Amino acid sequence: MKPIQVGLLGIGTVGSGVFNVLQRNQDEISRRAGRGIQITMVADLDVARAKAVVGDGVQVVNDARAIIANPDIDIVIELIGGYGIARALVLEAIAAGKHVVTANKALLAVHGTEIFAAASAKGVMVAFEAAVAGGIPIIKALREGLTANRIQWIAGIINGTTNFILSEMRSKGLDFDVVLKEAQRLGYAEADPTFDIEGVDAAHKVTLMSAIAFGIPVQFDKAYVEGITKLGAADIKYAEQLGYRIKLLGITKRAEKGVELRVHPSLVPSKRLIANVEGAMNAVVVQGDAVGTTLYYGKGAGSEPTASAVIADLVDIARLHTADPEHRVPHLAFQANTLADAMGTLPVLPMSEVVTSYYLRLRVADQAGVLAKVTGLLAEAGVSIDAVLQREADEVGGEGSTQTDLIILTHDTREGTMDAVIAQMQALPTVLAPITRIRKEELN
Amino acid sequence: MKPIQVGLLGIGTVGSGVFNVLQRNQDEISRRAGRGIQITMVADLDVARAKAVVGDGVQVVNDARAIIANPDIDIVIELIGGYGIARALVLEAIAAGKHVVTANKALLAVHGTEIFAAASAKGVMVAFEAAVAGGIPIIKALREGLTANRIQWIAGIINGTTNFILSEMRSKGLDFDVVLKEAQRLGYAEADPTFDIEGVDAAHKVTLMSAIAFGIPVQFDKAYVEGITKLGAADIKYAEQLGYRIKLLGITKRAEKGVELRVHPSLVPSKRLIANVEGAMNAVVVQGDAVGTTLYYGKGAGSEPTASAVIADLVDIARLHTADPEHRVPHLAFQANTLADAMGTLPVLPMSEVVTSYYLRLRVADQAGVLAKVTGLLAEAGVSIDAVLQREADEVGGEGSTQTDLIILTHDTREGTMDAVIAQMQALPTVLAPITRIRKEELN
Repeated sequence: MKPIQVGLLGIGTVGSGVFNVLQRNQDEISRRAGRGIQITMVADLDVARAKAVVGDGVQVVNDARAIIANPDIDIVIELIGGYGIARALVLEAIAAGKHVVTANKALLAVHGTEIFAAASAKGVMVAFEAAVAGGIPIIKALREGLTANRIQWIAGIINGTTNFILSEMRSKGLDFDVVLKEAQRLGYAEADPTFDIEGVDAAHKVTLMSAIAFGIPVQFDKAYVEGITKLGAADIKYAEQLGYRIKLLGITKRAEKGVELRVHPSLVPSKRLIANVEGAMNAVVVQGDAVGTTLYYGKGAGSEPTASAVIADLVDIARLHTADPEHRVPHLAFQANTLADAMGTLPVLPMSEVVTSYYLRLRVADQAGVLAKVTGLLAEAGVSIDAVLQREADEVGGEGSTQTDLIILTHDTREGTMDAVIAQMQALPTVLAPITRIRKEELN
Repeated sequence: MKPIQVGLLGIGTVGSGVFNVLQRNQDEISRRAGRGIQITMVADLDVARAKAVVGDGVQVVNDARAIIANPDIDIVIELIGGYGIARALVLEAIAAGKHVVTANKALLAVHGTEIFAAASAKGVMVAFEAAVAGGIPIIKALREGLTANRIQWIAGIINGTTNFILSEMRSKGLDFDVVLKEAQRLGYAEADPTFDIEGVDAAHKVTLMSAIAFGIPVQFDKAYVEGITKLGAADIKYAEQLGYRIKLLGITKRAEKGVELRVHPSLVPSKRLIANVEGAMNAVVVQGDAVGTTLYYGKGAGSEPTASAVIADLVDIARLHTADPEHRVPHLAFQANTLADAMGTLPVLPMSEVVTSYYLRLRVADQAGVLAKVTGLLAEAGVSIDAVLQREADEVGGEGSTQTDLIILTHDTREGTMDAVIAQMQALPTVLAPITRIRKEELN
């Protein structure tokens, strides 16, 4: 049987990894796929660099449409990134009857509904294992491995840059700005790190997982997104003293009236496995009603880990493209005509309706009655307190200090309620600085 | 489209879980599968108990062959267990053109070659996600998620009973016999716990993973199997002092001349995630050349976690049964005609050819020259020492003791070499008791 012919759009870090791993492991891959899988065309604006990677046996063009127009190409891999030209090319490849593999989380989180509909209409597969958590086969686990379950929640460390920064802040006691510079120097953070440190990249990924877990359309615009730029070394240290670590989590959860979809720093009990995922590694915890808690861990980025996921998608297509398209694994795990309407039965909840617990740090005047005042406001609002840590003023502000830190852990509270009570506490004359509020997830 | 009709052979703990989860989540499952999946017949020797579980809507019989003979049944789930009648029924179901789902690791590890060949000849699927690590979708990860990779090794905590026992021994400082009784009382260990505590169950599971990872036939008879019955609280304590935990691991590794396939207690660095998997939980670490290290964690047994895996297999069959059987996901990940012949290119190595590192504990006379003698023998054999811990005699044997424990960690050594040098050390008059040898895996 003739090899499957693949056209690659964009041969940067990940594209080179895909090409190299396919070459190196071609024997095992074809024994698994039942036929060879070959990249026969590559499109890249930098033709010379592309030729240096793939050598003479592969046709290199600077026009991606030459690949889409080639009737011999069975699968198109899109590794260009972004929402612009990538969207156009993916839709054109689908229209030309090509199966598509992409690592483009931003594209699918924003334009997934349009793209998957086009693919379903044309009967082709769009596979995107590499879009979430790099080499970890988490899309496959959610879409196929856990199909028996009513998924309850997913919480993941799905951005390596921010996990590296948080790990360094904790282990070295440094502040965010210092560690970011180090991360940039080491190549763990990009020159413009905004998408990573502001949580946008994680939000793209959790949006995809949310759709697959709950059978809803992708709704990136409904996600709550908060990054790690305001985290201080002090909060990481206090969290540690209370038995927690701070991680940037992408969380999606089934609640009574809808689905929570949010990215923000979170306290996680230190004893949980996911709290011990350090450096640039990724991990995703999934809770299902039958299976209980499962966890998936590995490298979330990098040339060959991401290539591992891209190639797994190629093998999947080689194995499954002959199956009845109506019943073949649906793109978002649920049959397209059964996705819960975004406006209907299972809406994404506004952040004010999210229920979680909280870590609060208040810089307060070191005088009698402050704690009573603060806890009084919480009690009036119906917020139940889990733990309180009051520091000695001298330790916090130096000898003779008249200020101290008051740390409060709450039980589950509606975010809207917490917003209101924080505003009340903030207005107290004895509260001397903006209150720090970090959400807390027990993940049990 | 009419629902897929499923016949269930054996409705004990797992079978009840399958029935209940299918009922409870039928809406979501059919939205994922594209059609309903219904258990319409159950066979169990205890018809009354079966009827109590499934109610009136399901036909209950005491003859499994009535299910196999029913032309309306599309899929047969085998949950009888063991090698005897289960083998006959699985082969008969295949011959009758039914797809088969089974949780029977023993059956597949021993008779897998025969069963998969029969299924391939008939063009039906035999799915067995539930056979390894319960609800963790590890078979799917290895068979489909990591297909880009040349797998280097797998190491797993794949028996919950022994992990529970080892966790309790460590946290409470108790000996094996005491904890086993507690585990039996709590239902974590069976009345006859032999298969678990002697490592046989883990060996069945790692045999299946080995075949899928390396493209070799199942070869349970070639596995090295050692359980946890001889482990003492002292070794767990010493390991901890050296920065390690002791876990019963199923290990399969690609070596230069073949594949290692072994189950035994292993020291694992405490900082590894898998070392922190406690109680009855399971976890599997997989190292691939492209993806690096990945880990999969969850419940390895129990009614609903195992049912989660069984039902995922049902959904897979619903989605994929129309694909070309020649290219559909192969049972053992590699196309059947490309499995490396067991006697040929990739044999399972005898234990004497395995290369690993070691923890050795020697009860020695507390006198000058003992350490020099022992380390001299190791040096002569070319065994390199990583660390030595010599205890104060008083601490080990009480005040005035003339004996002490000498603990040695080695670097990588061939097992055959280690056997020989242990025999030499054992013959020393200053070595006063049988030497304890526990293998050590760095898993990095």
